[in-house]
Amino acid sequence: MSIAATLESSVQVASLHWPRGYSSAVGAAAIKKAGRDDLALLYIPEGAVAAAIFTRNIFAAAPIELSRRHLKISRGHASALLLNSGCANAATGPRGLANAQECVDIVALALGCAVESVLVNSTGVIGVQLPMERIAPEIPHVVQRLAVATPLEVTERDPEALEPFARAIMTTDTTPKMSSRTIVCHGRTIRVSGVAKGAGMIRPDMATMISVIATDAAVDAPTLDRILRHAADASFHRISIDGDTSTNDSVFAFANGAAGMCDETLLAQAFREVACDLARRIVCDGEGFERSLRVRVCGAATRADALQVAQTVAMSLLVRTAITGGDPNWGRIIAAAGRAGVPFHANDLQLRVGDILIFADGEPVVADKAAVRAAFNGHHVEIAISLRRASDAHGDSATESYDASLTSDEFLSCGLTTEYVRINADYTT
Amino acid sequence: MSIAATLESSVQVASLHWPRGYSSAVGAAAIKKAGRDDLALLYIPEGAVAAAIFTRNIFAAAPIELSRRHLKISRGHASALLLNSGCANAATGPRGLANAQECVDIVALALGCAVESVLVNSTGVIGVQLPMERIAPEIPHVVQRLAVATPLEVTERDPEALEPFARAIMTTDTTPKMSSRTIVCHGRTIRVSGVAKGAGMIRPDMATMISVIATDAAVDAPTLDRILRHAADASFHRISIDGDTSTNDSVFAFANGAAGMCDETLLAQAFREVACDLARRIVCDGEGFERSLRVRVCGAATRADALQVAQTVAMSLLVRTAITGGDPNWGRIIAAAGRAGVPFHANDLQLRVGDILIFADGEPVVADKAAVRAAFNGHHVEIAISLRRASDAHGDSATESYDASLTSDEFLSCGLTTEYVRINADYTT
Repeated sequence: MSIAATLESSVQVASLHWPRGYSSAVGAAAIKKAGRDDLALLYIPEGAVAAAIFTRNIFAAAPIELSRRHLKISRGHASALLLNSGCANAATGPRGLANAQECVDIVALALGCAVESVLVNSTGVIGVQLPMERIAPEIPHVVQRLAVATPLEVTERDPEALEPFARAIMTTDTTPKMSSRTIVCHGRTIRVSGVAKGAGMIRPDMATMISVIATDAAVDAPTLDRILRHAADASFHRISIDGDTSTNDSVFAFANGAAGMCDETLLAQAFREVACDLARRIVCDGEGFERSLRVRVCGAATRADALQVAQTVAMSLLVRTAITGGDPNWGRIIAAAGRAGVPFHANDLQLRVGDILIFADGEPVVADKAAVRAAFNGHHVEIAISLRRASDAHGDSATESYDASLTSDEFLSCGLTTEYVRINADYTT
Repeated sequence: MSIAATLESSVQVASLHWPRGYSSAVGAAAIKKAGRDDLALLYIPEGAVAAAIFTRNIFAAAPIELSRRHLKISRGHASALLLNSGCANAATGPRGLANAQECVDIVALALGCAVESVLVNSTGVIGVQLPMERIAPEIPHVVQRLAVATPLEVTERDPEALEPFARAIMTTDTTPKMSSRTIVCHGRTIRVSGVAKGAGMIRPDMATMISVIATDAAVDAPTLDRILRHAADASFHRISIDGDTSTNDSVFAFANGAAGMCDETLLAQAFREVACDLARRIVCDGEGFERSLRVRVCGAATRADALQVAQTVAMSLLVRTAITGGDPNWGRIIAAAGRAGVPFHANDLQLRVGDILIFADGEPVVADKAAVRAAFNGHHVEIAISLRRASDAHGDSATESYDASLTSDEFLSCGLTTEYVRINADYTT
């Protein structure tokens, strides 16, 4: 359940490659800036079962609209995914849709696959048209770079390596985000690999984040969809950088079956681990990131209540600025909990920061000031809130009941910094 | 309806004094810092009808709890209000409540009035006890400073002047906030005067803002309550600095009847104008304030939908940082509107910034880039969103239908600045 879930023996961290039967290539079309890779193509020659989660924003971008349509027509199958950074192709009207269509057409023609088997998305500034005069001629070059996979040989241009792909979709990200797991199941080795871009605009129900998670396991489309939603719920839906939700959010999942069948529970676990790992990397590369923040809430009436309190605290600007300052201003934490719209008794709330009990029975607990200050000053700040008195619970401390997942949840965020404001005050210019 | 409501002839801007039959005094108890006024007492010798709106935060501060109780016991009557800055007396348990009670007892004893006729509130850091050893001896000095009113004589220590009171309740505010109106009604002159403190933590349903609005009109308690709620709804509930809601929010209203009866409509208008004026001053003194931002939304299915869209846009961190940077990144505005949870068709939305039509029919309108940049670069940025095509409306432009208040609303905010983060990253230390 936890973003920092511990690894079980059958699911292992793996090298940063695509699974069997996937290859990728990148290209530079000078979409926003010349000289950097801004086109990324993932190709699955034998095709794959595909699932996706898209933004719920009314201004869903043109490529999102097209990908939704293609997944519907193909009933959850795909052969390729084209992503670009530097321009979101959102709020761009009929011309934006025509441009997305043209990108897809060029990919399908170059690869010799059905148009409906090509998915597409974009990330970058909203309300600007794609520079098709530079993108259109570059796509065939990207396709040419897709070589036959050379397993185990890792170079920067290795078509099986995740890194070039992860780099080409970066916007304000400072590092590429990748994660990979292997599962040994019935003597076969199955791989689950993912990349993501994030940085700003991340929030429950996602935001300008794009993630691609691929496996060589064999599963049907409804199963892949279920596994993807479960993984996203435990990861991307529990992080926030700035509370905004973009026009281009998407998580794509592919399963091409090249490695054969896999136990669903293990596969789901590997997906969840990859997604949680990517989500954590997104938060820790949030715009202007200095410190991460995890808020865990237990003892709520329902899990939804626990999430609501965790999210309200984790997204409070006053809490997030205090975290940046290493300021032990814990009053802001309980004030945020108290306005979350979730009913509880003020005297029942217990607050811990790190290992220090700070507030209980409606008043501050006398604690070692230096220890409190230290708890607020780490690279990662851990806030634990119990909404139920210890005596009412089975255990005797707030931390013991976190596994009671029906009444607890958590949310990951980061300190709000002057650098965040600086980056975002001057993005288009 | 508008925060910038135009004045009607019968309600006039007036000098910054309390109405007849009110006097105030301040004192310095070194609550947070020595040498500045941090106690403010408002006294109504003949007593007044009283109404109040308090925070809905579960961690409502001890003085809020006490004031609520007193208003209930007195059935909406009061003789005095004691406020302090420098310490919120929130999350302070039984000792916090006892301290608030002691403050009230000292005031009642010194003034010779019933304990239940004294209201109280505090503002400042949460989770710290009031320094009663300094506050208790200072309160009688404050009471001694309440002189008999000397009408028309304005000095800094004038007991009828609003300014010393407004200054003593400031926390991170940089200027005192005051507003006053007179109404001529049936040949009598009625006054409505208000003060406020704000700065951070302001949001719908208020936040660490305290406001006091007093009139010498004669009204009963239910009428005063109705007038106050109406005024707060048009003002304090439509502004935001950082989206947080504090433990100490409150708006107090008093009516002592010293000037006689007043037409309710005119009185409500004067209250609304004073409240809107104070709300605007709060936003323009938001922590790290550089630019204010008004979002007006029309053409929604309901007024609540219009408010929801206006508030989502006005509170979006990405919009607010773009405003700070004077960055014409209007895509963030429509992206925020599109995630507000209010249904509309993407092709129907029209966006204007200042006078410039930026987006319509699902795509950017080709506009003069210099003009767009200028619209984003003022001291005040005006965003107008219509959710209904002009052809469906009576008028032919987005701006014409704003008076259709059943489907339109507005929200006031400000750019998010590096200075805001700096102030809040280091508040307790």
